[in-house]
Amino acid sequence: MSDPAALDAADPLAGLRDAFHLPEGVIYLDGNSLGPLPKRAAATLRDVVEREWGESLIRGWTAHGWVDLPERLGDRIGRLIGAAPGATVVCDSTSVNVFKLLAAAMRLRPGRDVILSDEGNFPTDLYIAEGLIELIGRGRLRRVPRESVLEALDAEVAVALLTQVDYRSGAKLDLAATTARVHAAGAVMLWDLAHSTGAFPVDLAESGAEFAVGCGYKYLNGGPGAPAFLYVRPDLADGLRPALSGWFGHAAPFAFDPSFRPAPGVGRLRVGTPPILSMRALDAALDVFDMVDLADLAAKSRALSELFIAEVERRVPPGEIALASPRDPAQRGSQVSFRCPHGYAVVQALIAEGVIGDFRAPDLMRFGFAPLYLRFADVADAAFRLAEILHERRWDRPEHHIRASVT
Amino acid sequence: MSDPAALDAADPLAGLRDAFHLPEGVIYLDGNSLGPLPKRAAATLRDVVEREWGESLIRGWTAHGWVDLPERLGDRIGRLIGAAPGATVVCDSTSVNVFKLLAAAMRLRPGRDVILSDEGNFPTDLYIAEGLIELIGRGRLRRVPRESVLEALDAEVAVALLTQVDYRSGAKLDLAATTARVHAAGAVMLWDLAHSTGAFPVDLAESGAEFAVGCGYKYLNGGPGAPAFLYVRPDLADGLRPALSGWFGHAAPFAFDPSFRPAPGVGRLRVGTPPILSMRALDAALDVFDMVDLADLAAKSRALSELFIAEVERRVPPGEIALASPRDPAQRGSQVSFRCPHGYAVVQALIAEGVIGDFRAPDLMRFGFAPLYLRFADVADAAFRLAEILHERRWDRPEHHIRASVT
Repeated sequence: MSDPAALDAADPLAGLRDAFHLPEGVIYLDGNSLGPLPKRAAATLRDVVEREWGESLIRGWTAHGWVDLPERLGDRIGRLIGAAPGATVVCDSTSVNVFKLLAAAMRLRPGRDVILSDEGNFPTDLYIAEGLIELIGRGRLRRVPRESVLEALDAEVAVALLTQVDYRSGAKLDLAATTARVHAAGAVMLWDLAHSTGAFPVDLAESGAEFAVGCGYKYLNGGPGAPAFLYVRPDLADGLRPALSGWFGHAAPFAFDPSFRPAPGVGRLRVGTPPILSMRALDAALDVFDMVDLADLAAKSRALSELFIAEVERRVPPGEIALASPRDPAQRGSQVSFRCPHGYAVVQALIAEGVIGDFRAPDLMRFGFAPLYLRFADVADAAFRLAEILHERRWDRPEHHIRASVT
Repeated sequence: MSDPAALDAADPLAGLRDAFHLPEGVIYLDGNSLGPLPKRAAATLRDVVEREWGESLIRGWTAHGWVDLPERLGDRIGRLIGAAPGATVVCDSTSVNVFKLLAAAMRLRPGRDVILSDEGNFPTDLYIAEGLIELIGRGRLRRVPRESVLEALDAEVAVALLTQVDYRSGAKLDLAATTARVHAAGAVMLWDLAHSTGAFPVDLAESGAEFAVGCGYKYLNGGPGAPAFLYVRPDLADGLRPALSGWFGHAAPFAFDPSFRPAPGVGRLRVGTPPILSMRALDAALDVFDMVDLADLAAKSRALSELFIAEVERRVPPGEIALASPRDPAQRGSQVSFRCPHGYAVVQALIAEGVIGDFRAPDLMRFGFAPLYLRFADVADAAFRLAEILHERRWDRPEHHIRASVT
């Protein structure tokens, strides 16, 4: 029942692996940093560049629907995060989108001054909050341990800024329950879904959360630095005054009005001209998800990480490494981390042997399990190699200690 | 001397036309909206997608120098705008960059509250100023006619936000003289170089201007929605606190520090993960400029537009259309506009015949003259066709009156 070959044979998503270009000899457990190349993205980009841009030139904006890409891609992602059509838009980077929505949240709660976050939240979310507070001359960033966030909710909290899946441990918050607690305290909920979207289904609408952001280049496989997305609860969108009020958020960008008049709905949070090449790569990457039942995605995400934990713990003697992710799969994203004192060198040794995971200081070895293209056999093989590297101390070679990693 | 064939034969930039893909039968006078495809960009993108992303995956960030692209491309553009190395960075959209620098400018002049701009400035610049003022609860946007901007300088003005070349008329401001007047009034100078960069050389450093932004997809030919750039005068960079403080502006993005610590220099104004596919297209587009003497660029820009004006005025009877751009080439960017009561339909008729210009309400026909790929013969031919369309009233057909233009 945990035989990898049998699991692969029964996998309803097995056929999707062929939609990706995966280098020979590589087991890729870093799709939570940068997803691999969908074959369609390569073909689409050739076409966008050579035919759409090359032949249509400026006419491409209408002839090829470039101008509507942010909303169209937003709705495609909306399906993956449980958003109604028209609630999601693809634009800018996750960081810039956090800024827009934090600014909006602060305006929704004029009598409250605290941005509450997890002290271990992905740093850019915290940095953006710091910059906004300094810019508007109002607010305080309250950073508490992840397990104390709900206790730290009080009448001063304007907005809770939380990442559903922790980028180091993979610990996953319950979207609906957390949002309910934040709302009960009278605060606005802003979710960062960077490590959720595309790995398992999310139900934003049901949670009632006001805002969310997410990333296009991790489990969505949109390419390095792919545009990010943002979500606004539909009842709020028409009341928002965008902090970053650019011409693509205007009701009629090409009327060249002298004053800003926001577009209806979430489209008002667009800012500048959308980066079409990067957007079309993401568009093609999203095609793969059209073939996916999201329940299968969730089930395989869980099964892959369960298999990895079981195989690692079966092969590695207790004490050498320690599970740093929640053992309960319901509390874990699509990622498993192990603590190991020489984790950096072990990850380098793994990479040298074709198993790509990554390392987060001080001692976390992090492995992502993307359900679209990973096989159970790969996961078992990765666990086997990890155990071997540890057993034979293959990590203890000078070349594995050189720190040059950027991920 | 104004014989197009002779001018082409003597053109030192003539050989560069072959670096671009230009559709058969098209004379492209809209490179000031979206530059055409450089052939190298197509080849580069194939390589970036298939080899860099496809094969290197996450390792691409170091293996292919993705992480330094914003600074590297910034310096490449810096050469075109007279900036010292390290003063320019490629990131985000022009709109977002205007926001960052306006916020910085307001902080540099805490005792002053006015953002001064031209009422006919490109709308996104004005919109962003409106949004910033509303967000920070401080400031006023003073919009005056372009010709009155210098008179409107007073002790209340914190920053002058001006576009060097007007997007409708093509009127060009003297960078050094205008900056000197703004400085004399004690205000900060923020230039929008969207319609300057890549059309003619700019000398930002000599002007002493504090800040500038510009566009990657017009005369730089970086592709639809290419990333924009920003410039900070070197003595100021290390003192700026970024309003949008994202992880790529951190001194050590991959140290995952809990608090923001700005990178040295202009790099602190980076925000999120850079869009590598769009950046590498721009990178390839900039290769063409490596082969260009900027004095030749300026001379050809002027000569092309002078020829167009002469040919149009020679062929079109007075009264039918009127030059809307300054007649003095020293006061004109690389663009010529004519007023015409049925301008929209005339431009549509031109496009239908392969001459792509564009239209700006209420009555402006706008033609851009990009020196890298236009031939003098093309310009003369475009003038000839414009005259014919007017003379034979070929614009007065139902299909040319349908308004669907998005540019």
